[in-house]
Amino acid sequence: MMSQQNIEEISIVLVGAGNLATNLGKALCRKGVRPIQVYSRTEESAQTLADVIGASYTTRTDQIRKDADLYIVALKDDALPALIPPLTEGRGDALWVHTAGSVPMQVWQGHAARYGVFYPMQTFSKRREVDFGNIPLFVESNSESDLALLKTLAAALTTQVHEADSEQRKSLHLAAVFTCNFTNHMYAVAEQLLQKYHLPFEAMLPLIDETARKVHELSPRLAQTGPAVRYDEQVMAGHLAMLADEPEWQQLYRQLSESIHHLTS
Amino acid sequence: MMSQQNIEEISIVLVGAGNLATNLGKALCRKGVRPIQVYSRTEESAQTLADVIGASYTTRTDQIRKDADLYIVALKDDALPALIPPLTEGRGDALWVHTAGSVPMQVWQGHAARYGVFYPMQTFSKRREVDFGNIPLFVESNSESDLALLKTLAAALTTQVHEADSEQRKSLHLAAVFTCNFTNHMYAVAEQLLQKYHLPFEAMLPLIDETARKVHELSPRLAQTGPAVRYDEQVMAGHLAMLADEPEWQQLYRQLSESIHHLTS
Repeated sequence: MMSQQNIEEISIVLVGAGNLATNLGKALCRKGVRPIQVYSRTEESAQTLADVIGASYTTRTDQIRKDADLYIVALKDDALPALIPPLTEGRGDALWVHTAGSVPMQVWQGHAARYGVFYPMQTFSKRREVDFGNIPLFVESNSESDLALLKTLAAALTTQVHEADSEQRKSLHLAAVFTCNFTNHMYAVAEQLLQKYHLPFEAMLPLIDETARKVHELSPRLAQTGPAVRYDEQVMAGHLAMLADEPEWQQLYRQLSESIHHLTS
Repeated sequence: MMSQQNIEEISIVLVGAGNLATNLGKALCRKGVRPIQVYSRTEESAQTLADVIGASYTTRTDQIRKDADLYIVALKDDALPALIPPLTEGRGDALWVHTAGSVPMQVWQGHAARYGVFYPMQTFSKRREVDFGNIPLFVESNSESDLALLKTLAAALTTQVHEADSEQRKSLHLAAVFTCNFTNHMYAVAEQLLQKYHLPFEAMLPLIDETARKVHELSPRLAQTGPAVRYDEQVMAGHLAMLADEPEWQQLYRQLSESIHHLTS
């Protein structure tokens, strides 16, 4: 067990080389915590990340090193359960954590003695490096001493370290899907519409920024503006008519407007 | 007609005292362009705005001054057509503009000789003062000289002055409903969900900010992350189960996830 003084000495294996693993690996590296090995099923992803952070890599679970202190598993949630047995086999003494919002900590039970969760709530893309400094990071473990270790590691990355049990984490993840993925889809639909009318998406950026800034001060419910909250039927009818060629977006427009009206009236 | 040199001398009447009129009135004032009068059907709104910007006010259309150079009409879109005849009567020589994204310029035809549109594309709330400096402002007029005047006035407020005809403006407004109003509703749903689980909405702010920042660099379509784009059916099923008590949001979750999947796959 590592003390709080020497997290640089923890040897870490990163299992996964996707968006989250890439950003986490780089952020750890910047803090002097260098993962020793990267595993990914996809050789290109494994090699790319390993090269950047100065680690070795493998595409075979049986070649994952057995001497690490901590295994951070950042895989697609669907893929995780099937991989747990081959991953943990012969590595049962180490600390195992996953990074998924919606996977309960108990997924490790029966496969590892020491386990937990290390969930940074943020949207990660390989093409964009994220500053971890103020990302909320939620940790959980089946032992107090490992929880302390995970908190220390998290605190090296961000000022926002919180404990959250699996139920709370699942709720956070659901809320995050609305605030991030669904929000980004609203941007994406706008981008498609503007392309159709030969207008640049960039025109939307000041509006996007203000919409985000505004909810730092006002509750989103009070911050709402636009035709749906005013129940401006003529404007809404005009917009629905413009979406006649896009029944899916027309349906979204109708349902979102109704939902805004329900919540704000 | 005012030349480009002395916009401070234009006498302006603000028709409306809502979110947009309030922010626009204050912004004009800060630039030394002080509206002389505010009209609103609601006395409290009229008086509040008039006091802040040092103008007189009225709640009666027949008492709106007849000697202004420019009338800026910032009313709910639904209310505009019915008010145009009493507003313009006896004031037909002045320049009339409205501020609505979805109302065509031709709404003025037959009521005023000189008219146009002055559309700042932003989300305005009375409780939050907005910096106009980088807000895209779209102008249109039926005469070249009035278009020049509106551009000069707009340029006093923001660096982002564009001409847009009524069709383009309507498209911009539709896209703005997606990027702003529907996005804000995603924040609002998240807030409600987190309240239910006794978790603070503030935990979402770093994610909201990064989601907005990200599309300054990446196309929203490429920026997408999360269970829907990965088509992580187990996570989506878990989230849908959590929304069982909220059929409206459950339906939104399902449709938005499908729409993400269609756009990104």
